Amino acid sequence: MSEILRQLAETIESRKLSKAEDSYVAGLCSQGRDAILKKVGEEATEVILAAGSGDSAAVVHEVADLWFHTLVLLADCGLRPEDVFVELERRFGISGLAEKRSRATRR
Amino acid sequence: MSEILRQLAETIESRKLSKAEDSYVAGLCSQGRDAILKKVGEEATEVILAAGSGDSAAVVHEVADLWFHTLVLLADCGLRPEDVFVELERRFGISGLAEKRSRATRR
Amino acid sequence: MSEILRQLAETIESRKLSKAEDSYVAGLCSQGRDAILKKVGEEATEVILAAGSGDSAAVVHEVADLWFHTLVLLADCGLRPEDVFVELERRFGISGLAEKRSRATRR
Amino acid sequence: MSEILRQLAETIESRKLSKAEDSYVAGLCSQGRDAILKKVGEEATEVILAAGSGDSAAVVHEVADLWFHTLVLLADCGLRPEDVFVELERRFGISGLAEKRSRATRR
Repeated sequence: MSEILRQLAETIESRKLSKAEDSYVAGLCSQGRDAILKKVGEEATEVILAAGSGDSAAVVHEVADLWFHTLVLLADCGLRPEDVFVELERRFGISGLAEKRSRATRR
Repeated sequence: MSEILRQLAETIESRKLSKAEDSYVAGLCSQGRDAILKKVGEEATEVILAAGSGDSAAVVHEVADLWFHTLVLLADCGLRPEDVFVELERRFGISGLAEKRSRATRR
Repeated sequence: MSEILRQLAETIESRKLSKAEDSYVAGLCSQGRDAILKKVGEEATEVILAAGSGDSAAVVHEVADLWFHTLVLLADCGLRPEDVFVELERRFGISGLAEKRSRATRR
Repeated sequence: MSEILRQLAETIESRKLSKAEDSYVAGLCSQGRDAILKKVGEEATEVILAAGSGDSAAVVHEVADLWFHTLVLLADCGLRPEDVFVELERRFGISGLAEKRSRATRR
């Protein structure tokens, strides 16, 4: 199921060159990098407000918005979510093996 | 590879109840929800600054930080990344089948 | 000239109870505290983007937007800019006298 | 009292060229524009969190921090708070005269 980010990134990639009037992603990308960054800032604020309200459904909704717009930003920068996954793996040492060890340790 | 978010969430989950001095996650969670939200706000700002500078490695680094801290927030709210994946699938209609259809349409 | 913030706060105060359709401030306040906070977050992001672009006129424009929306927030919280001025004076020890001393020291 | 912003801007101006170890402002400015912008983003997040908590003293404290760091940003951009006051006056038509009229209308 977590394949969704990769699939969503492919969808964004395929849409970013569509006509602006046919696609939200194309419309946003056509306004330039700063328009995407404004959305990232807005969605981060909305995550903060949702979490402050303690409404779990709102937190899920706003984190989805934030992740989606960071995927649009990555696409606009010529990057892919895999680049971020590699960085997270490198940083946290979580790979197939490390994960097994970490599970073993925890139990 | 995109399993990383799920694995990282499990690691965060296992660490959030560690001693604050043994783990960054435990230390952050022990300071309360607002401390986590401050980090989400900070990391969103750093994503914006990195993207403005056009430095791809910095964008990857800061998006990794932002995603990581949203995972900590989800854990603190008793939520999991799967909850966000389900929301994204629902919203974008990307499931195994939908993805095939979307690929077919695109080509 | 710096009386403007105090005057603007009075104007905001007088408008916050107008009909939502007659005044931007009333419209914003009628949507609740979170709507105002979203604007504060948005305008902070726009200050960051403007400063990154190095466009002085844009920085002035966006800082004006940010200060204006913090004034709306203060009014919504039953606070006034004077409350913030007092805090800044307390913190930086700048009063009529202190200012004279600080000028004397600098020269 | 609202002269404080202008006086504070002068103090910031005089300190930004001090030795970094002698002054918070000099230390921040010596780290470059992005360091100042990170603080603006952080303080905006703290305003949002304080306002969400409904703690008036915290709101005043965090708005003071946010205004202070926007003053540092203005100084770093070669701008002054007067530039923002002029923009606000232009936008809201509040000058000595306009203010009198606006008071007259309100009553």
